[in-house]
Amino acid sequence: MLKNINLGFAVKVGIIGLGLMGGSLAYDMRSKYEDAYIIGFDHNDKHCIEALKLGIADKIVDNLSEIKNVDILFLAVPVDAIISIIQNLHDIDAHTTIVDLGSTKEKIISSIPDDIRSNFVAAHPMTGTEKSGPTAAIKGLYHGKAVVLCDIENSGKEHAELAKEIFENIGMKIFYMEAKEHDKHAAYISHMPHALSFALATSVMKQENPKAIIALAGGGFRDMSRIAKSSPNMWTDIFRQNKEHLIDAIECFEGELDKCKTMVQNQEWEDLYNWMQEANSLHKIL
Amino acid sequence: MLKNINLGFAVKVGIIGLGLMGGSLAYDMRSKYEDAYIIGFDHNDKHCIEALKLGIADKIVDNLSEIKNVDILFLAVPVDAIISIIQNLHDIDAHTTIVDLGSTKEKIISSIPDDIRSNFVAAHPMTGTEKSGPTAAIKGLYHGKAVVLCDIENSGKEHAELAKEIFENIGMKIFYMEAKEHDKHAAYISHMPHALSFALATSVMKQENPKAIIALAGGGFRDMSRIAKSSPNMWTDIFRQNKEHLIDAIECFEGELDKCKTMVQNQEWEDLYNWMQEANSLHKIL
Repeated sequence: MLKNINLGFAVKVGIIGLGLMGGSLAYDMRSKYEDAYIIGFDHNDKHCIEALKLGIADKIVDNLSEIKNVDILFLAVPVDAIISIIQNLHDIDAHTTIVDLGSTKEKIISSIPDDIRSNFVAAHPMTGTEKSGPTAAIKGLYHGKAVVLCDIENSGKEHAELAKEIFENIGMKIFYMEAKEHDKHAAYISHMPHALSFALATSVMKQENPKAIIALAGGGFRDMSRIAKSSPNMWTDIFRQNKEHLIDAIECFEGELDKCKTMVQNQEWEDLYNWMQEANSLHKIL
Repeated sequence: MLKNINLGFAVKVGIIGLGLMGGSLAYDMRSKYEDAYIIGFDHNDKHCIEALKLGIADKIVDNLSEIKNVDILFLAVPVDAIISIIQNLHDIDAHTTIVDLGSTKEKIISSIPDDIRSNFVAAHPMTGTEKSGPTAAIKGLYHGKAVVLCDIENSGKEHAELAKEIFENIGMKIFYMEAKEHDKHAAYISHMPHALSFALATSVMKQENPKAIIALAGGGFRDMSRIAKSSPNMWTDIFRQNKEHLIDAIECFEGELDKCKTMVQNQEWEDLYNWMQEANSLHKIL
């Protein structure tokens, strides 16, 4: 599909944001589309230089207007920056597909200017690591992972198909969802767990001698605290944009943790055992 | 040391509990002590058969009295079972070292009968996985991990040295601590994080359509929910034995999570950013 659209010419890809998500996408795109020509844009000069060195981008531009003339433009920046950038894409060509990779969807979709709504495909690839920047980019990050495409009926047919083709080609499993449903699910599966990991890290750090505690860390603590390394910049934005669903998910979690604490306090060991068994049942699905 | 004690004869090791911890210990002991003869005991017949097949034990006995005549006896069973078993070790030889691998230490140590106190080395290897049973045992589980030896001044010198030698030989980093301090630290680094993981799993499972949510799970959720697979049997015992410290740690965590929620509710984004940065600082240590 992509080659047809380009009538045999090299496919031109724009990536705004050359960090973990954008950089890894460039690697995976290149492995499937050998003729891809990738134009990069990033507000961080160091990231631009690194992205060129790493082969993430073929060319760096320093003005948004210079990255609009592409077949497909990926927005791989924090969610507030996505909203701000799409206000400046009015004059984009009708054939240019815009795909955002943001972790929230309602606020982003509602901010898309009407005249470019059909260009736009709102996507959330459910993958990542706690690291950031071009040097954090890894090959195969997207492979075998889920990507949620939201309110796809409002994307133009050619744009929806192109985005779908690319995500499938890089090995992703596609899910379709309304933006609101996505944001609720994402709060439970990603945003609230990040809040837990941050809170776990701060609760240990405020102890009298955190070093002595952390020296004992086994695999459980390492796993539970890994995403507490994530970028405060990126996650403040996500928490702001998904405020209501995040609070709901935190409150649901608080209810469960309080239940656990109360059972321990009241020495209700059989109930505690049953509650842990209920938790075990998650893994019949996962 | 071990060979001297045995005057050239094969070292006799007893392992009570042939699951993940006991089985993995057998593998790591064999790689360092080729002449080790391992006698196993487990209340689960299936586990006994599996342990023989896997080469975890050379011989299985079905009576506690038959496993007492060893150089070193490891107790690798849930913490309540440790307490119950040590009440039946009165007549053990003065030269037999007993090492328990329990995740709690105060209650276990206080339950050791006086006449075998010097035989006893109270240890907590800070390693494991969410799996259990002999088939979950893995080679190298102990390598590079921390082990805490508690109240070691109350262990006989030969017993403390033998335990230390073995843990070092299988690649562990030894920490010494009072039992109370251990239990407090373990609550933060292991027990409370398990409570969080169980609560995360149950809060997702009680949603309207957990399958649709879990289909979107990325690496963060997988890591955060992994230890929610852990054995309810083992963890009910741990929560019971470390009740007070666990509740303190949960309450400290609840305070941090509530702080996060309040900042989101009140839209205090700069404070939230700073709080996330504080969480990031954990990883300067870890």
